[in-house]
Amino acid sequence: MNVAICGLGKMGMNLVLNLMDHGHKVVAYDINDKLVEEAEARGATGARTLEEVVNNLPDKKVIWMMVPAGDITEQLVTAIEPHLSPGDVLMDGGNAFYKDSMRRHEKLKALGIHYIDVGTSGGMEGAREGACTMVGGDKEAVSEVEQIFKDVSVTNGYLYTGRSGSGHFLKMVHNGVEYGMMQAIGEGFDILEKSAFDYDHEKVARVWNNGSVIRSWLMELIETAFSEDPKLDDIKGIVHASGEGRWTVETAMELETSAPVIALSLMMRNRSLENDTFSGKVVASLRNQFGGHSVELKDSK
Amino acid sequence: MNVAICGLGKMGMNLVLNLMDHGHKVVAYDINDKLVEEAEARGATGARTLEEVVNNLPDKKVIWMMVPAGDITEQLVTAIEPHLSPGDVLMDGGNAFYKDSMRRHEKLKALGIHYIDVGTSGGMEGAREGACTMVGGDKEAVSEVEQIFKDVSVTNGYLYTGRSGSGHFLKMVHNGVEYGMMQAIGEGFDILEKSAFDYDHEKVARVWNNGSVIRSWLMELIETAFSEDPKLDDIKGIVHASGEGRWTVETAMELETSAPVIALSLMMRNRSLENDTFSGKVVASLRNQFGGHSVELKDSK
Repeated sequence: MNVAICGLGKMGMNLVLNLMDHGHKVVAYDINDKLVEEAEARGATGARTLEEVVNNLPDKKVIWMMVPAGDITEQLVTAIEPHLSPGDVLMDGGNAFYKDSMRRHEKLKALGIHYIDVGTSGGMEGAREGACTMVGGDKEAVSEVEQIFKDVSVTNGYLYTGRSGSGHFLKMVHNGVEYGMMQAIGEGFDILEKSAFDYDHEKVARVWNNGSVIRSWLMELIETAFSEDPKLDDIKGIVHASGEGRWTVETAMELETSAPVIALSLMMRNRSLENDTFSGKVVASLRNQFGGHSVELKDSK
Repeated sequence: MNVAICGLGKMGMNLVLNLMDHGHKVVAYDINDKLVEEAEARGATGARTLEEVVNNLPDKKVIWMMVPAGDITEQLVTAIEPHLSPGDVLMDGGNAFYKDSMRRHEKLKALGIHYIDVGTSGGMEGAREGACTMVGGDKEAVSEVEQIFKDVSVTNGYLYTGRSGSGHFLKMVHNGVEYGMMQAIGEGFDILEKSAFDYDHEKVARVWNNGSVIRSWLMELIETAFSEDPKLDDIKGIVHASGEGRWTVETAMELETSAPVIALSLMMRNRSLENDTFSGKVVASLRNQFGGHSVELKDSK
């Protein structure tokens, strides 16, 4: 099949290679010329403008966007739209908020253009060797391009999730679960690190990955991290959040359901962004006021 | 090697079979005669009393206890102790609190008897087909019986964790991580179930298990559960806690470290034990008092 990949970042470039491995003809577009050249060198047809993208595709155009969610996706959809005709397929493999995807789907549907939301998991390795794709959109439109998802995914790693938005919604919740699992793993190693025993974290992760109840890809990843830096001395414990966790918590509130562990995992990421907290100062002050408990003064005082 | 298994429950019986598969001669003891008979029928030497256990072992006795933590373990240790001589090895494969294991280790060490704490994970399937064992105790004592742990564990599924207590401590923290991972998974499916989309949970678990970041044995287990009961209609959402989660939280408090997600996972289990809560009544009353917000009366009122 002919397919264009728009966005040649870590995920997009690996998808280009993965698609070509499966015999697809790939048009590779990015605003960064260097990345287009790299894709060309590896066998893709490079495109430096959206005109070049559509000119290198057959009459029925299939375009897969792999760019950051939010403004960049919005701008790209707006820029691509004039180049599309009824029957064409535009797919978003990024981490868009599912309501944005549903809005884009409605807008393009009025023009006869199919819009498909592709939740994509598995990281760079997955994009290259076999990802997990959760795909929402009109059933007929999805079936037309289904082979693409089957090809870039591992066996059983592709699911048609239902109507527009359901793919990105499922990816959002996946990431919420991921937040909770990662925080639990982090807390466990924190307790080991502070305990009176002398654990080798890499060996712990390895034994937990072999036969235990908590064996998982995340545990394999942390085993690798510990093998490279046994106490993670080289990095700071600062964890940014890129949207999906927050949306999961917002969705839980909208649905009036309780998801305290996912919510708290997000809050702990927020906490990690600060060296000190104003809330901590408030509580220390209160404790001092009523109980005379000492407060710790800044070094400069 | 000759080894006795004391306790032929789901874990113990499977361990007996696993050990025999690896050529060990197993003496199988339980207070339940039926289980002893079953072990005999499957090739073990049955023992109905502790005298029979020790009489069927060579001079250097190796005994592996596989019974519930707490009183039962304490009583069994006390009952076995008079039958042991210096150089013998007593191992606890249950989920004992690590401080209890350290206390027993000290007590038996004074008598020249080796006490080894064996954190065992992997469930019934693991006990039968290959477990994960985290083993603490005096190094020389552990190396004498190390082959046993290597044999019953999957490849790389055995770790000597260090001095007495470190095996059960590591298993405790493992279970704490497990609490958090399970709660995160539960919350994710809860959001999916209440969403406006129509997800097939079994298919979701399957796609998440193939290529996604959250692929894990726990996700495989829930895939199986959903395949048997698509909406889990047959069971209640009541989750008991058996000690390890609570000990992990108590340990985090002792170490003055923050493990909020593991702690909250435990609290959510506590919450699941009640249909209604007194705390909910208090908050509803307060809301009514200051804001006139309506409260929901019991059906009988």
